[in-house]
Order: sequence, then structure tokens, then C-alpha cells
Amino acid sequence: MKAEIITIGDEILIGQVVDTNSAWMGEQLNLYGIEVYQITSVHDNHDHILQAFADAEKRVDLVLITGGLGPTKDDITKKALCDFFDCGMVVNEQVLQHVTDMLSRRNVAINQLNKDQALVPEKCTVLHNAYGTAPGMWFERGGTIFVSMPGVPFEMKGLMNDQVLPRLRDTGKAKSIYHQTVLVYGIPESMLAEKIEAWELALPPFIKLAYLPNQLMIRLRLSAYGSDPELLRKEVNRQIETLRTIIPNHIFGYNGDTMAGVTGKLLVQAGAMVAVAESCTGGAISQLFTENPGSSVYFKGAVVAYSNETKTALLGVNTKTLQAHGAVSREVALEMAEGVKKALNTEYAIATTGIAGPDGGTEEKPVGTVCIAVSGQHQVWVERYTFAHNRERNILRSSQTAINMLRQLILTENTETI
Amino acid sequence: MKAEIITIGDEILIGQVVDTNSAWMGEQLNLYGIEVYQITSVHDNHDHILQAFADAEKRVDLVLITGGLGPTKDDITKKALCDFFDCGMVVNEQVLQHVTDMLSRRNVAINQLNKDQALVPEKCTVLHNAYGTAPGMWFERGGTIFVSMPGVPFEMKGLMNDQVLPRLRDTGKAKSIYHQTVLVYGIPESMLAEKIEAWELALPPFIKLAYLPNQLMIRLRLSAYGSDPELLRKEVNRQIETLRTIIPNHIFGYNGDTMAGVTGKLLVQAGAMVAVAESCTGGAISQLFTENPGSSVYFKGAVVAYSNETKTALLGVNTKTLQAHGAVSREVALEMAEGVKKALNTEYAIATTGIAGPDGGTEEKPVGTVCIAVSGQHQVWVERYTFAHNRERNILRSSQTAINMLRQLILTENTETI
Repeated sequence: MKAEIITIGDEILIGQVVDTNSAWMGEQLNLYGIEVYQITSVHDNHDHILQAFADAEKRVDLVLITGGLGPTKDDITKKALCDFFDCGMVVNEQVLQHVTDMLSRRNVAINQLNKDQALVPEKCTVLHNAYGTAPGMWFERGGTIFVSMPGVPFEMKGLMNDQVLPRLRDTGKAKSIYHQTVLVYGIPESMLAEKIEAWELALPPFIKLAYLPNQLMIRLRLSAYGSDPELLRKEVNRQIETLRTIIPNHIFGYNGDTMAGVTGKLLVQAGAMVAVAESCTGGAISQLFTENPGSSVYFKGAVVAYSNETKTALLGVNTKTLQAHGAVSREVALEMAEGVKKALNTEYAIATTGIAGPDGGTEEKPVGTVCIAVSGQHQVWVERYTFAHNRERNILRSSQTAINMLRQLILTENTETI
Repeated sequence: MKAEIITIGDEILIGQVVDTNSAWMGEQLNLYGIEVYQITSVHDNHDHILQAFADAEKRVDLVLITGGLGPTKDDITKKALCDFFDCGMVVNEQVLQHVTDMLSRRNVAINQLNKDQALVPEKCTVLHNAYGTAPGMWFERGGTIFVSMPGVPFEMKGLMNDQVLPRLRDTGKAKSIYHQTVLVYGIPESMLAEKIEAWELALPPFIKLAYLPNQLMIRLRLSAYGSDPELLRKEVNRQIETLRTIIPNHIFGYNGDTMAGVTGKLLVQAGAMVAVAESCTGGAISQLFTENPGSSVYFKGAVVAYSNETKTALLGVNTKTLQAHGAVSREVALEMAEGVKKALNTEYAIATTGIAGPDGGTEEKPVGTVCIAVSGQHQVWVERYTFAHNRERNILRSSQTAINMLRQLILTENTETI
């Protein structure tokens, strides 16, 4: 099955918005064995959109359209779809009810613009959008499927996951494919490539390996293509078992796992809770924990100590330690970790103190210098790192590294029980 | 002048790489008054690339091509350009010398693959690439300009700035254009559209309005096209002045501003600092403040109180208040704000307590119920909201709303001084 993605919106063409939707859709379709043949971004212009639909219909069997829906876009995509499929609009009662419900939950009175959201092309199948007011729309003609979705990323992703991908799977046109992604942290990409080179070369020809590094980890994706799904599953998992023996400490999870989520599970298994003292990470570690539903079971709280006064008053850091070693020091990191563990009465604690940048660096402690301490039930561990990146990346890398240190400490302290 | 951007590379279509090049080019061209009519991403495939060139030639006067150059891509773009312009390849001596120089500086011996970089289509004008070994190439035919550049972002940007944009300016075909983006918060999109409808309809025909909502705000972009840059600037700014009188409380900034950044500037002007007590937002408010360089001047710290015990121990929330009203209540939010203001010794404080979801909701307090308190030098302000979204959005909306409440409180308390 060959697909084309059409994104509609002036904001992409003038560069105000980076088109991250297409990359996400491309990755998902690829996982289902559907090849994205072309991505086309066009204006909020009726004739231009119609031309793009007609061109795509000649090229591919699946056209995924995002954007150009909603009152402020004057529903330009919906009108173009009506013209393209030669039909009128009808009110869809389910959509009208859904829009009314959503707005009343937000205490917003429905107006004509909202009501117009329930107007859909006669020839479409409506796809329920649980995340917003503009519905998804599915059309079929002469062997080509057209799907229209809103351009708001979380609405598009919700519709793809809930409605579009399951329906595409049901068409049976997708190839058999089996994917597993191994999540790796704490090793540079080039060193990882060297370490696993022999293993990679020995992979059977029907398994492909992809390196997918992002700011939070390196993802190693194994994709197996073939006719026997059970064989693919077995062989991929066998290869992953071998990989585990080569880099045991660097693999922290699989597929959609996150470092904080994995560490949270370890805390639950150990019957323990964590507290965090953040200086340079400024709340980022807390956020990485609390973005996981149910995190209150293992995450007790944090102190963001962005001034020496707060480090002393709330965490009990000794002013003498601050004077002797400076706020960015192993000694202060350690006192912050012990202080927050005591103040919040937990079994584990993390502390960070550093220079995120762009200013504040010195020759001895350049921008990116970060001291991280983790404290457990029997052990403590302090490290000094130099992350030579921009502010955003320094904060993210420090946070992820700190949680990884906690993960390793919990594993060390609980080898018997976990 | 109308342009099309063609990006060549499988990595974009399978979603391994987000196409940030096109957004950057779109923005630059726009600043030069060149309209990007379409963006097309195609495979590393000869026939597909040729077809894309032919289609683009019919649509626009300028085609900017990135990617598909260099040995690992088998120079597929260069070969397609030769076929498209019906010419052979020749060795360009300047490019050969440049490649040799670059490699010798890196102590790399030149091989045949490197030498092939100096082969260029006969009919092109070579554009010197100071940032890499693959040259830029400029073609003209029947009124349409084609430019090919490497896909590596910093090489493409260097070539655009040094060579392509100056040459395009010299063609004299560019229109004058002027953009301003107004940042709006705290009003649903449909209500905003109604409120400013009359103003929008009265805009002169050479000014276009675009709604660009994202999870953190609604951006209203005014774009003016014409021949007199000074007139465009004046008229856009005059229209924005009128808009300010219609929605004075909802406009919080312009162009690249952020809510936390704007609020930080107000704190600095008021000579004051803020402390934050976060329950349901779990560190997100702290992060929105601390992602700004220099935020330690106005952000003193935070307590992430993810358990009642922490709310009591660190923020001094009364256990009776917790029992009487529950953790998610206006009363607790207020005590949290007052508590963190006292503990961290600041002039201003923000507190949040709520149910981010997906679990924990009740009939009386459904998921998305959030109480937010802000406390200032003379006033306090508490609100209860219902954000009916998923966990991530509930956290983000609560955080942005809380900072917006602080912004409004600072403005109220300091009308004389700010």
C-alpha cells in the first residue's frame, strides 16, 4: 500500500509551524508496512487543494489529509472534499451532540460556527474525534482511500491511533511486520555502534536495524518483514536477548517506555518513594515523573531550589558548604539530596545543581557543568558531568541522567527483591 | 514570485527526520516577499524526482531543492538535474580544489567518491558552499529558476544566506511584506472570532489575518503585502492598536514572546520575585519559568507537593483545611500559595491543586478540575477551572492559566509603576 500525506495550511508554507505531523504519520505508517510515497504541503486555497487531491489520487492508494478544518479556516478542506467527491454537506447528529457536550463541559455556549462543525460531506464515513470538535472523515473511491483529520497534533494522533490505523489494518493490505524498539541510554552513539557491530552484521537478512536517537535516548528499532508473524516475533525477541548480554546496563526499556516511567515501576516494586531537589533542572525532573499517570504512588514531591537561600531554608544545605565549594559542587548536590529525603520523608532522593547556560559559566565550571547526587536506603552516589549543549538540552540531559542514576541505584540496592 | 520547495530523501518520508529545512526556508523567503506555494517531499528515486521537477516547473517561478547529493545518496539529484536540463556532467575545477582543501584540513585523503563531488551538470552555475563539499547549483529555463542545495541544515542555511537569497533579491521580483503576530490567551477560539469579527472584516484588503492556535495560546498573524514597506508597517501596527482596545486583557505578547517570559519581565519591573507551589502541575510551571535564560532573577523556587504530607510539612497547609474541603479546593490552593510565599520569602506566589487525570475524578470534581491561587503584595485571587482534556493538556493548560493569572495580578497591583 502506497500513501501520500497532504498537509493544508499557510502556516507551514511560511515556516511559522514546523510540520512534525508528517514525520509522526510517516513513522506510524511505516510500522504498519505502508510506504509513504510523497508528502505535499499546500495553501489554504480551494483550487490548490483540489489539484493536490487529484494528483495524489493518480499516485497512491491512501491519502492522509491534515489541516484546513474548523471555523477559522472556513472549513476549506471540507468544502474541497465535497467538490472532489461531488456531494453536498449534511448535519451529522453524533458530531453535533459531541460538540455540544464538549463545549458544555467547558461552560461555553454553542454558536453557529460550532454548529457548522457537525456539517460533513454526504459521502464520508465520520471518524469520532474524542480529542476535539472537528471529526475525522473517511472516503473511498476507485481503490483509493482519503482520510481527513484536524491539523492539531494531539487530535490527529488520537484519531490515527483510535480510528485510522485500526481501519487500515483491517483492509488487510498492509504487509506482515513485527517491530520492537530497544531503549538505550548512557553511551555515545558511535561507541554503541562499535560495541554492537558484530551483532548487527549477524542479523538475518529479514531483520532491519534502525538507529533513532533523540534528545532523551537512543532507540534501536528492529523490524522484521515476512509471511509468518510468529516466526518474526520469535526471531526478533531472540536477537534482543543477545543484545541484552552485550549492553546490559544501557538498556533501560522497550518501545513506549520512558526513563521516569521505568524508574517509577522499580520504586513501586521496592515499596519506596522518591523526593527530588532541583536547582539547574528547574522542575524538569519532577515533570518527567509526574507526566506519568499514577505517579503520586512513588513520587512524593520536590523542592526547586533556584536560589542559595532556598537551598538553605528548605533543604538544610549548610551555608559553609556553599561558601567552601560553591553551589555547583558534588558536596552541595549531596546535601541537597539528603536534605530533601529528610524533609519529604522518602526512601530515595535525587538532587541536581549546575550551570544550564547560556551565561554563568567559568573556566573551572563551564556552562553544562552539572553535579548530580542520588541517595538510597544504604548508598549514595554523586557524579559531576559536563554537558556541552544549549540550555534546553543541558536541562534535559541532566534530568534524564539523574533519573537513570536513580534507576541504577534502585537496581543495585534491590537485586534480591526486584 | 512564487516558489516551491522540493526535499529529497527517504528519511523524511519514513519519519526518521522532521523536515525543519522547509520551515526555515519558508520563513526566509517570506521575509523577502517570496511566497512559498507548495512543499513537496519525494523519495530517493530518479523518476519520482524528475516528475516532481516537471510538476513544479508548471506551478512556480522558483524551485528550491534540498537533499539527494553526496556519495551516500549516489548523487541522485545531480543525475536527475542532468536529465531534466538535458545535459552532461563536467568537472568544476574550483569545486575540486575546494573539496581537496577541505579534506586535507581534516587530514583525510581524497578518494574517487570525493572527486565525484566536483562533477556538476554542464548547464548550471555553481554556488560556492563554504560549509561542505557538495556545491550549490543554479539553473534557469523559461523564466523558472531551479536551485539545488545539500540537505544538511547548516550547509543549506549557509548557501541560502551567502548565495541564494542575495541573488534572488537581485532579480528584483520580490514583493514587500510585513508580519506581526499578536499572542492571545484566556478566550476560546470561537469566542475570539466572534469578538473580533467586525475588526477583521474592516481590515484593508492588503492585510491578511491568520489564526494559529497551539496548546499554549492563540497566535493572530497579520501579514501585509504591497510596494511601500513603511506604509505596511504603519498600517499593521495601527490595526494592532485597534485590536488591543477590543481584547485588552487577552493580549499578552507579540511574535516570539512566551507567557512565562513576559511575566518574568513584569516581575523584574516590579522589583519582585515569585515562588510556586505545584500539586497537579507537577513541576510544569517551574519549568516554563526556568527554561528562560536568566530566570533566577525573578524565579526563587518551588515546592512540588504531590502528597498531602508534603503540603502540610513544607507549605504549612492546615490538616483541617485538607479534611474539610479536600486537597483539590480553593481553600487549599490559597493556603499553598500563602505557604510557599512565606517559606521562600517572595512578593508573589502561585499555587495549583487539581486532578490531571486520567484517574482520580469524581462526580463533584471531575478529571480536569483545577484550583489555582495567586497571591501578591496586596491581593489574592483564587479560581476553580474545569479543563476537560487529557493529562498532558490539563497540566499544560493549568500551568499557562496560572502564569496568566499572576501576570494579570502583577499588572493590577503595579499599574502606577509598570
